[in-house]
Amino acid sequence: MPTPTRARLSPEERRAQLVALGKEMLSTRPIDEVSVDDIAAAAGISRGLLFHYFASKRDFHVAVATAAAEEMLDNLTPKDPDVDGLDQLRSSLTALIDYVDAHRASYLSLVRGAMSGDPDMQALFEWTRARVTVRVLEGFGYRPDGPAVVPLAVRGWVGFVEDTVTTWLQGDGLGIDRDAMLDLLERSLLALIRAALDVAR
Amino acid sequence: MPTPTRARLSPEERRAQLVALGKEMLSTRPIDEVSVDDIAAAAGISRGLLFHYFASKRDFHVAVATAAAEEMLDNLTPKDPDVDGLDQLRSSLTALIDYVDAHRASYLSLVRGAMSGDPDMQALFEWTRARVTVRVLEGFGYRPDGPAVVPLAVRGWVGFVEDTVTTWLQGDGLGIDRDAMLDLLERSLLALIRAALDVAR
Repeated sequence: MPTPTRARLSPEERRAQLVALGKEMLSTRPIDEVSVDDIAAAAGISRGLLFHYFASKRDFHVAVATAAAEEMLDNLTPKDPDVDGLDQLRSSLTALIDYVDAHRASYLSLVRGAMSGDPDMQALFEWTRARVTVRVLEGFGYRPDGPAVVPLAVRGWVGFVEDTVTTWLQGDGLGIDRDAMLDLLERSLLALIRAALDVAR
Repeated sequence: MPTPTRARLSPEERRAQLVALGKEMLSTRPIDEVSVDDIAAAAGISRGLLFHYFASKRDFHVAVATAAAEEMLDNLTPKDPDVDGLDQLRSSLTALIDYVDAHRASYLSLVRGAMSGDPDMQALFEWTRARVTVRVLEGFGYRPDGPAVVPLAVRGWVGFVEDTVTTWLQGDGLGIDRDAMLDLLERSLLALIRAALDVAR
């Protein structure tokens, strides 16, 4: 945690600082344990002032979850745009597994926790899933006039990844090592795209 | 709706009657619109008496959702145990698509609605997904000493089905007809099991 500071920040800077502190705290604990009191103390402001920037604890949590989703998407973006689709996929999946493994408590609390039924959280999840779907399709050179069943299958694969990774984390690895997990996620995408192309044929 | 009745029912019968009325109502509206006042009126009892059987509206909704999950699982169970794995799969998937299509509003409200973050609902969903996973594995003759990645892939396929079906319903079919959807769900399972076996090899 940074040293508490009373520095004058613009409203935008203050808001960003509070969200960044929340995201940092979220890396080690579930979202419902990201306490606004702790955040306000870390920022050197009063709890009341925090609620000047966020209408409620829930709103603050949604902002923190949104920032975490952005960070995860950034992580999945291949750093070298010149590598081909399959290598990009492998590097994105590696980044995903490493990210969720490092943020286990918060990942599980977000996708399976009490806040997961919140309309804003649902909208954030759907938006995140849609963006992952679009990136995968772009990586494979899918064109908008392609068969509609392919984007549907890729969207379903995002659900497959979410469920297998969650089950794997909750089951403490299930005796399946990280490389086998990566292999499963990669092969499953290729298999599902092939299945969708067969349906469209 | 049956005619209101004041017949003396045993506590178990009364509870079952209230849940059955809730399940009937759930077939046409989302879970949060299944009103305890309407249910009490249909059963010919007071709202107060309903709360004698269920501690809260939430508890009543969880009981109704549990009954709906049982009904859906019953629907997926092949009526003829002698048909082979693939025919069973096709008939179960047809039953699934028909069921969710007929119960669209309630299905979406359960898997994507405000109650989906409730711990009891999450436990119900996980239990339902686990039972579907076990039935699929049994249908394919999977043995407990088989590679652990196969049940994980089938569990992930359940997530794939949930996400593609939800996206399909929400997108009003996306120009993909019922037969193509069935084809996708069937091919995706076979493709994912093959991918899992390749990982285990």
